[in-house]
This record gives sequence, C-alpha cells and structure tokens, in this order.
Amino acid sequence: MATYSSLLSFSLCLLILFHSCSAQISQVTSRSRQQQQRYQTQCNIQNLNALEPQQRVESEAGYTEFWDQYDEQLQCANVAVIRHTIQQKGLLVPSYTNSPQLIYVMDFKELHSRVVPIHTNIQKNNHRDSPQVRGGVAHWIYNRGQSNLVLVSLYDVGNAANQLDQLFRKFFLAGSPPQEFQGGSQSQSQRGRSQGPHQEQGRQQEQRRHRGQGQEQSGGNIFSGFNQELLAEALNIDTELVNRLQRNDPQRGIIVRVEKEFHVITPQRHEQEGREEEEEEREQQRGRYNGLEDTFCSMKLRHNINKPSLADSYNPRAGRATSINAYVLPILNNLQLSIDKVSLYKNAIYAPHWNINAHSIVYITRGGGQIQIVSESGEAVLDEQVQEGQLFVVPQGFAVVKRAGDRGLEWIAFKTNEMAMTSQLAGRDSALTSMPVSVLENAFGISREEGSRLKNRRWEMTLFTPSQSSRGGRY
Amino acid sequence: MATYSSLLSFSLCLLILFHSCSAQISQVTSRSRQQQQRYQTQCNIQNLNALEPQQRVESEAGYTEFWDQYDEQLQCANVAVIRHTIQQKGLLVPSYTNSPQLIYVMDFKELHSRVVPIHTNIQKNNHRDSPQVRGGVAHWIYNRGQSNLVLVSLYDVGNAANQLDQLFRKFFLAGSPPQEFQGGSQSQSQRGRSQGPHQEQGRQQEQRRHRGQGQEQSGGNIFSGFNQELLAEALNIDTELVNRLQRNDPQRGIIVRVEKEFHVITPQRHEQEGREEEEEEREQQRGRYNGLEDTFCSMKLRHNINKPSLADSYNPRAGRATSINAYVLPILNNLQLSIDKVSLYKNAIYAPHWNINAHSIVYITRGGGQIQIVSESGEAVLDEQVQEGQLFVVPQGFAVVKRAGDRGLEWIAFKTNEMAMTSQLAGRDSALTSMPVSVLENAFGISREEGSRLKNRRWEMTLFTPSQSSRGGRY
Amino acid sequence: MATYSSLLSFSLCLLILFHSCSAQISQVTSRSRQQQQRYQTQCNIQNLNALEPQQRVESEAGYTEFWDQYDEQLQCANVAVIRHTIQQKGLLVPSYTNSPQLIYVMDFKELHSRVVPIHTNIQKNNHRDSPQVRGGVAHWIYNRGQSNLVLVSLYDVGNAANQLDQLFRKFFLAGSPPQEFQGGSQSQSQRGRSQGPHQEQGRQQEQRRHRGQGQEQSGGNIFSGFNQELLAEALNIDTELVNRLQRNDPQRGIIVRVEKEFHVITPQRHEQEGREEEEEEREQQRGRYNGLEDTFCSMKLRHNINKPSLADSYNPRAGRATSINAYVLPILNNLQLSIDKVSLYKNAIYAPHWNINAHSIVYITRGGGQIQIVSESGEAVLDEQVQEGQLFVVPQGFAVVKRAGDRGLEWIAFKTNEMAMTSQLAGRDSALTSMPVSVLENAFGISREEGSRLKNRRWEMTLFTPSQSSRGGRY
Repeated sequence: MATYSSLLSFSLCLLILFHSCSAQISQVTSRSRQQQQRYQTQCNIQNLNALEPQQRVESEAGYTEFWDQYDEQLQCANVAVIRHTIQQKGLLVPSYTNSPQLIYVMDFKELHSRVVPIHTNIQKNNHRDSPQVRGGVAHWIYNRGQSNLVLVSLYDVGNAANQLDQLFRKFFLAGSPPQEFQGGSQSQSQRGRSQGPHQEQGRQQEQRRHRGQGQEQSGGNIFSGFNQELLAEALNIDTELVNRLQRNDPQRGIIVRVEKEFHVITPQRHEQEGREEEEEEREQQRGRYNGLEDTFCSMKLRHNINKPSLADSYNPRAGRATSINAYVLPILNNLQLSIDKVSLYKNAIYAPHWNINAHSIVYITRGGGQIQIVSESGEAVLDEQVQEGQLFVVPQGFAVVKRAGDRGLEWIAFKTNEMAMTSQLAGRDSALTSMPVSVLENAFGISREEGSRLKNRRWEMTLFTPSQSSRGGRY
Repeated sequence: MATYSSLLSFSLCLLILFHSCSAQISQVTSRSRQQQQRYQTQCNIQNLNALEPQQRVESEAGYTEFWDQYDEQLQCANVAVIRHTIQQKGLLVPSYTNSPQLIYVMDFKELHSRVVPIHTNIQKNNHRDSPQVRGGVAHWIYNRGQSNLVLVSLYDVGNAANQLDQLFRKFFLAGSPPQEFQGGSQSQSQRGRSQGPHQEQGRQQEQRRHRGQGQEQSGGNIFSGFNQELLAEALNIDTELVNRLQRNDPQRGIIVRVEKEFHVITPQRHEQEGREEEEEEREQQRGRYNGLEDTFCSMKLRHNINKPSLADSYNPRAGRATSINAYVLPILNNLQLSIDKVSLYKNAIYAPHWNINAHSIVYITRGGGQIQIVSESGEAVLDEQVQEGQLFVVPQGFAVVKRAGDRGLEWIAFKTNEMAMTSQLAGRDSALTSMPVSVLENAFGISREEGSRLKNRRWEMTLFTPSQSSRGGRY
Repeated sequence: MATYSSLLSFSLCLLILFHSCSAQISQVTSRSRQQQQRYQTQCNIQNLNALEPQQRVESEAGYTEFWDQYDEQLQCANVAVIRHTIQQKGLLVPSYTNSPQLIYVMDFKELHSRVVPIHTNIQKNNHRDSPQVRGGVAHWIYNRGQSNLVLVSLYDVGNAANQLDQLFRKFFLAGSPPQEFQGGSQSQSQRGRSQGPHQEQGRQQEQRRHRGQGQEQSGGNIFSGFNQELLAEALNIDTELVNRLQRNDPQRGIIVRVEKEFHVITPQRHEQEGREEEEEEREQQRGRYNGLEDTFCSMKLRHNINKPSLADSYNPRAGRATSINAYVLPILNNLQLSIDKVSLYKNAIYAPHWNINAHSIVYITRGGGQIQIVSESGEAVLDEQVQEGQLFVVPQGFAVVKRAGDRGLEWIAFKTNEMAMTSQLAGRDSALTSMPVSVLENAFGISREEGSRLKNRRWEMTLFTPSQSSRGGRY
C-alpha cells in the first residue's frame, strides 16, 4: 500500500475566504439566498491542453504565478487561478477581493502552527440592539516555517457575489501589487474580450504581449489613491506616516520579508480555532470526529480535507476520494463552491462521468496520468498526459475519464456549485447500469447478452481497480 | 358546447426533466435556492411573426424539428424549442442536457401506458451514513402505441442551472445526434451572435445556410470521444463491444426502431407511479383528486395538465385555463419554470394582460386565432392570425391579447418563472378596474362617466365571452 | 447644532415599487429566493465626474430629467436614474416597469397627506380555494400640494427580476411617454452597446445626438398598439372611448394637469396605511416606534427614512447615518436593494471604506463636499467637489472617502444588495484597527510605534469629527 502511506505523509489545508461571516442565522439565510448564480461566458471548447501558469511576478520574499484568465477553459468556467510561493518569513500583505476565493494550501502539516491565515474584521452593529456581525475579508498570510509555502488560489469571478465585470481584481491595502491583479487597468480592447465574438483570434497574442509588460509595472495599494491630507485627517495621523502607507516599492511587491520578530496577538477566536483543530485531531485518532459541527465562519474557515475520516470513497486497490460540499462545510453555501480531493493509485481509473450542475477546475497536486474530456459533439477536446502543477477545466455536462500513471495521480477539483453532483458512465451506480437491457440493446444495436455485460462487468463504485493487463502500465 | 366536449376527447401530459431529484428536504431547499436567475440576451423585438420549425432531421423511426434558436423572440426568452415525432416502436435514445427541460406530450391518453418516459439514476451517497440521493437525467422515450407520438420540448438555456454559454446542447449517450444539438461545434461566428451587436444582419442567412448542411452531418455520442482501450478497461468489456457503443450511424439517428420485443423491468418506483396515476384517475372521477400531494420527483415528474379539476378559470361561454406553477407542482421550484394550458371557445377573448415576472413562450396546440403583442413604445410588434403548431414569445412586460377564431384556440404557454404572474388590462381584476375614476378621467382626458364605463363594462375575470356582433366571427 | 436642527426641518420619504406584493408567506419565500442576482456589465472605470441629468423632457404639468444610462458609472452599476418634477395638481400617469424601482421623495413632510403614491392591483386567485394575492405595480402619483414635488427614481435594470435586456423600459398605461422610456425603440447600434467592446468610443456622442431628438418624439402608451375594435370588444366599450385611450398628445406627456377636483376613493388598505403612518408619528414622538413591524407590502411601501429613531450612527460633532436594509424593511428582500441616508456636518468626514457586496449609487440631497474614489489599481478615479443634485457611483470594492464642505453634506446612497455591507479603512472597527501591529509594521515598513498610531488615533466609528485645523474649511 505504498501509495496510501505516501498519502498519509502529506496533508492539505483549504482556506475559504468570503466577503464576510454572518453570525445571525437569519442573516446567513438571507445571504445564502443572495449568492446564487454564475455569470456565463463563452464555452468555445474545441481543443484543450493542460495549463501551466503564464506569468510570474517576483516579490521581496516570494513570487506569484498567474494562469491566463483569458484561456478558453478558464473563460468558460469564469474563474481566475493564481499560485503564491511564500518564502520563509514572508508576509503576503493584506488584501481583499470582490469575488469569493478558495485557497488550497500545499503541505499543510508543516505550516499548521505557523500560519495565521485569516484576519476577519468583526464589527458590532448597534442597530436595534440586536447583535449583528459583519466583516470584510482583508486577509494576510505569514509563513513562519522553514521552507517555502505554496498556495493555489481560485477566485470565482463568475460568482453572483461579484457585481463588477468579469475581470479579476484584487484590492491591496499595502504593498505594490502588479497589474495582473488590476482588472480595471487593463487595456480597453482587452477588457471587452469576454464579450466580443470576432476579437477572439487576436486575444491570446495580445494577452501575452500585455502580460509581458506586467513584470515591470506596479500599481499602488488603495491608500495610495487618496489625497494625502484628507487621509491624514481621516486616520488622524501625520502626513509623513501617510507617505509610508502610500509608498510604491515594486521590489517589495506583495510578499515582504519580516526582518524582526513577528508578534501576533491572536484573538480569542483564533486560539479557540487552534484548540479545536488539535481536538479534532485527537478526536479523529479516537474515531469520534464527525465533521458536522454546527460552527460559524471563524471556526470552519480552515478545513483539513485530507483527514481520512472524511473520505467519501475508498477502494484499497484504487484510491480514495473526498468531497467537501455545503453539507459538510455550511459556509460553502455562501460561496457557491465546493471541492474534491482525490488520490488514485498506480494505473487506477476514476470512473468516466459528467458534472451535472457545476464546472470542475482540476489542479494536479501530485503524480501524473491520462485525462480525456469529451464534448457534446462526441469529440475528445482534451486527451493528454498531465503532471503535477498543471490545471484544466471540465465544463458542465462534458464527459471525463482520468487514469493514474505509474506514480499515481492526485488532484483537487474546485467545483462551481456548493452541492456539486456527478453522474457516472460506468460502475455500479452509473447511467448504463440503471437502464433496462432493452434500452441498451436497441439504443446501441447490440445483443441482449452484450447489453447485460455493459451493465454488470464493472461493479465498483467510483474508483476502479486497474485490469491485470494495464497494471503493466500501458498509459 | 362542442368545443368543451372536444376538449375532453384529448388529453395532455407534461414531462419535467431536471438535473436530478433530491430526496432530502435540506437538499431540495439548497437546490431550489441555487437555481435562481435567467441570463439576459437582447430583446430587440420590433416586428415579429409566429414561428414554425426551421429545420427537420430524419431518424430511423421518426424525425426531429428545430425552431431557430437565433430568432429574436427565442433569443430574448433565451430558450430552445424542438419537436420530436416518434413513430410506432420508435425509441428516442438516452440523452441528458445541462439546461432544465419541459416536454409537452400531445395526445396523452393514447400513450399513457406505452411510454416509460423517464429514467432517473438514483444513487446512494454513503457520506456520513446519511441518506443522500443524487441523480442525473439521462432519459429515453419509447412509443409503444399505434400512432406517432409528438413531443414539444422546451430547453431553458437561460436558466441559472446552465453554467455553459447560451448555445443549446444535448449530450447523447447513444445514437448519432445531428449537429443541431451541438452548441459547441457550431462555427465561431455563429456562437458569438448572442452577444455581438453589429453582426445581427447576417445572422439569419448564415444560420439557414449552416443549418442546411445539418442533415448530412452527424456527430458521435459521448462514448465515441473516448479512447477505445481506456473505455474498454473502465467498463471492463472487450473493445469490440466498445466499438458498438461508439458507432456513428446517421441513418439510425437518435430515434431508432425497436425490432424485437421491448422489455422494461420497471423499477418499483415506476410501478408505483403507474398505480398512482390510475388512482389519480379514479380519484378524479370521484372528485377527490386534490393535486397537491407532497410527493417527490419520481411521482410528480409527469403531470396531466388537462384534468378538469385543476382548472384555474372556467367560463362556460368562453373557455378554460389552467396554471401549473410551483405551488401546484413543487418540483417546478427547481426549474424556475411554470406552464399554462388554455382553451378558448369560438371567438372568445383572453383578457389583454402583461407578464409581470416571466417571458411566456406560447405554442398553439389546436385551432387558430388572432394575437396582438404591444411593446413599451406602444407599437404592435406582432399582429397575426396563428395556427396549430406555431410558436411565439410574449416578452416580460409586453402587453398581449388573444382572440379565438371560428374553430376555437388552444395553447400551452411555457413561463420562465416558477410562480409566473400576470396583470390584466381589462376584466374584473384589471389595473384599470382598481384605479380611482379620477385617475382614469385625468390620465386619459375623459369624462367621469367614461372613466366609470372603462372600469365596469367587462366584469368577467380572464376569459371573455365574445360580444354578439363578433360571434359572427369578424376575426 | 445648527445642522441637526436644519435636518429636522425637512423630512424624506422612500417609495418602493416592485412587481407585486405577496400576502402568503410561502410565496414571499419563493419570491425572495427567486430575485437573486445582478447582471454584469463592464466596469471600465478610469476617470469619473459627478453627473447631472443629461436630458429633460417637458410634460403639461411638470418635467422629467434623465441621467445618461450609458455613462460608464451607471453602466457598471447597471441602473437607470430619473428625476420627476411634478407641479401643483400634476398627475404622473399610470405606468409599470419590468425592473424594481426605488423612488426617493424630496421634502416629504409637505406632501405627506397629498400623495397617494401607489396603486397596487390585488387580485384573488381562486386556485384550490387558498388565498393567493398577486398584483402588478401600475402606479401613479398626484401632487396635491402647493409647490413642486421632486422624485428621484432608481430603476434597477441589472436586477434579476428584469428578464429583458439591459435597456431601461417603462410601460405607460396612459399619456404620451417620451422615447427615453423605450429601451426597445432605441437604435440597434445603441442597443448593442452594453455588450460590444469596440463601439465604446462613439457611444456618448451618438447617445447625445440620439437623445437630442428625444424631445420631439413621443410614443404611444400600451393601449395605442392594440387593434381598436379588438380592444373595444375586450373592454366592452365603444371605439370612440378606445380612441381616447390610444390618443397620443406629446404636449400632455406623462405628467398631466388635473383641472377638476381630484377624488380618490381610498381603498381600505390605504386608509389603514394612512392611519398607521399617523400612528407611527405619534409613536415616534413618544419614542416607541420600533421600525420592525411584521407588515406586508401595502403598509411598508412607504418608509420615512429620516426618523431620528432609525439612525444607525450618530456623532453629535459629525453627523448622522441611517441604513434601511432588508432587516429593517423586509420587502427589500424582494428588491435586492437597500438605501442609506447620511447627514455630515460642516467639514466632518465619513470614514474611508469600501462596499463589500454592493454598488453604491450616491445622490447628493443637500450641501456639498469633497469625494474621492480609488480603484484597485490605487488610482483616484473620482476626486471632486460635489453639489446638491449630483450623482455618482461607488463600484463594489472601490474605496471612497467623503468630507463635508462648509454647508454640510447630505446624501442618499442606493445600494444594490438588500443587506449591503461596508468595511472601513479608518476608525474603531476598521480593517487596520483589527490587524496585529506586526502586520502593519511589516506590510508598510514602519516602526512598531507608527503601527500602533495607525490603529489607535481615530477612535470614532463611522462619522469623524473634523480636526481643529480643517474646521477652518480647507476642503
């Protein structure tokens, strides 16, 4: 069980950032009602490749990589994906976005006690004397560890919570953000792309050209746009200190090196969270963790999705799959997102299936394998060997099959629905299995016996054991 | 009462297809919250005509007709409409879509016991030991009857459940679908049309040209896009059988002839459904049917909308109207759709009104009559004699009046809201009736007596008796 | 406290118009779920100015002013704003829209007993013998007072309730509406603008030219588009009276002069409403008004947002701010809108902040001051002295600071979320205040002492007292 034990040797963490956390049930209901639907873009999906980041921007204590938001896959899913690499003692400076955001933290065990990832700004609203908690999500991340910290961040630009246009924007409260974060400062021809039908051809070249300049240009943080004296009066500080807030230093960028000691006066809530996590771990060892605490945002903003007790599917000869949806983690109702984590052993197959009500944005976290994606026209739009660090999109309805290579295959799949569902084309609960033999017989023009074979020969659920022949590693 | 008795001589059935049916209340709630809003397109409505299908594609045992999805009316409503004619012993092969779908079945009485229309794929999710039902809607339809079976299918492309773009797509698990079902394989200039402002002029010609080729081209089903050996291993079958799944035979198309006997091992659920329908009929005869059973998807996916007891409005001299909304049929909450069925007797008038919160897509099921639709600029954008088999859209807010011809007029209206509402311009509960006379007097510059006449001279509710003069059949 | 007493000397009223009011809880739930999300447009915000109306159309007894719906600010927020000035004895004729609408009534005290603003058309639906109330919002407004009545009306074109495109439309049941209300009759090149990327440059000129013709052209009301004889039969009136309904008289326009006495037979509901308002006022004087009655549409469609007891924030040296959201006024759940009313005293500052989950459309009701808006690129996109009667948009996420001039500054802010939230950049509950000093220290490269100053020197909540130096009125 080499693969399984290697699975235990690393662990992963998910950070969920949203506009706010609401501590009143009535408000939660109201809010979850409100964030409802995705914005559509074009899904001109014909011939895809697994994607690597297109752009890299250096900061003082790390670097940030950007996938091309205008790639047709990411356009169709209407998300932006970036990857931060934060060096030891690096601080990702405070920022916020207008879109919900999921951050996947690689190598969680290491940084467990080293990162205080989320700063949530709780404020009492004295309206009618009823408690009402609201907050923004200006957040920062500090790497207290001995090695680089890698974060894969998905920004759900197409989410209903985003009331601006479909350009990816991130608002920095400090530092010198590169223009890749500034949807609004991109050129006008570019900004129209998600909508114009005939400008597609020139898009990618122009995109690359534009982005090529990105590394030299940096904008200011949001303090830098205010009048110095007005800001000084609002904060009741001297203009010299305002100068420091507004300073633009592209060398420092958005990940700065902490030179002195880093003190964090942890709010009560965070301590509690730390304790809870430890308790969770203990509970888990005792087998009592149930994963369904009725907890609010502060407590469930971090979620270790690799705990074995959360696994949905486990096949000792094929692998393990876990889904974190709004049922498991209620705050996902607010984000309209969910996430899967899957480990496939050597040569195992993840059942061919389609996503019923979501796009699936897949990031390979480890190993490699074969991926095929088929469109409604019956053509393979992607058929490729993928590797760790690559990304691809499985659009809603499109059929997909994944098969691990010799080193196994592990991925996370961000899904654009808080209760994402799939329907399988093979396996015990598949569409074929539940059709009458007469339908299969006539629909495919096959014999009764063949129809019966079609239904019954693969009786595993989702994770399929490789056949004898393929254990030799054909793919 | 010739028209009324003829009404009884035929009966209609509605099939509702959706992503899935959810057997957990909590999930139902979550799902219904999630499907929320329509995607907007242009509503450049200036001069309309009632529409007939633009394209016809033959299959082995029937044919499929397509309305032009790029017609400005259907663009505004953002729906696609097709009509299947399935011959005796014809099987419409399994397929699924990424948009909710309503199928209106003509001549229901005949096929009642002959069609097993819906295959729903229920699968247990062992997550946390709580029951959780999820399913896709790969469905197939078989005509066991003695005559052709006609289905009018509305695909709600603009529905929030569709996360792809605004092209109509249908994914076939078998057969050889024509490219009309393949939004993704349409040409790039075409796919951009729903968005580009200046390309409108050339649209229709190109559309026709493109579609003209449609009959010769067929794509494969979704199995055909996978690698043969990978699929063989996933299904654990030999590649010869995979060959049969992947075979593209345009002659058979998507409606195939069943040569041998057609056995369906009806799942328990379906039997139950059959019994329920018989019981419903008996109950109905005894007058005890209440139409409000608290049932789940499997039981209420079919709904006979012509049962007299469901009628909302009945005027013995004008006709009968029935609304099926989410209040009557809760699963419509998930689709964000509802449907009206109206029978107008000879020369009767359906009150002029506007749709408050929905588009109305009207399909004439019988007879003929006069339709006028007025835009916010006070111009008639449609003023036409319509006939059985034609289709038109009444956009949200636009005012419409319908008047039956000499043979009566019957229609169904698909509405893009699960609780569609109208407001009338005439009749007992109209906007005029509830305004103070002083407002009418001054707003129209008429006398007090005239204002009073305006409010009080038409005291029926919705279905208006023809006046003496018009019973001669002026329209 | 001169400013505060002047505040008391005028009072404001808010009218809320929506498709309908639903008297069944189940329906309210269903409806509020359904209206969920905004339509996105482009937010190409680079260099803004406060806006005044671009177009003025005269009617017999008043005039209507239109802000340019194609201005980039209003495009980004996806709203249309108009201002009606109704002379003494003027009647704004009945109309309805397909978008939710908020009307802000200037100088409410004066017209309190003179306006019967909303006619709501309630009708019983005898479906299943259960009460079901539905209605349209054909509404009219009459100025019974001695002076002009000024209404500022926001139409939320981007609201999910609008199923047509993003053109502003208003459907008039009477009068001769100018073409500014007719999205559908605008030229084709114009209608495509909200979507086409490259046509932006020519937009504004063409817009102006087009609108310049607007004053001479008038369309008919919706009755004018129907066939005369068909309408006569539907209403059961003679064609001569139909002629009067259909008459197009641009001189009268949409605000007509009431020559004779204006009788309104107030429905029971309205009387009740009147009584309630008087009671509210008495309660308010006795300090017992709680603003949270569990009331339905008819009772809460008008809301006096200037009642001191509703104030959220009050700083005797800086001003007063009130938020009306769905928590205070549940019907706002249906509109997905809320509203703020703020009075800043001379030279006081409203805390720099960003809107977390909404756009903010700000209309200056009194006085003047300095506004700065900063985008995610750290640039001030608006930096201007604003005056009474001007309008500007603060897009979601953008940072904004407001500072009153010598005469004080008062505004209303329409917000595109029924539970709009902000996060502050300064003050006791700001993002800075709740960050650890170490984060500020390293993020800004400042000393520990400076970080501490940044957090602690402005300890007011939202409304900031001017500093000694600026009380001289620098801005």
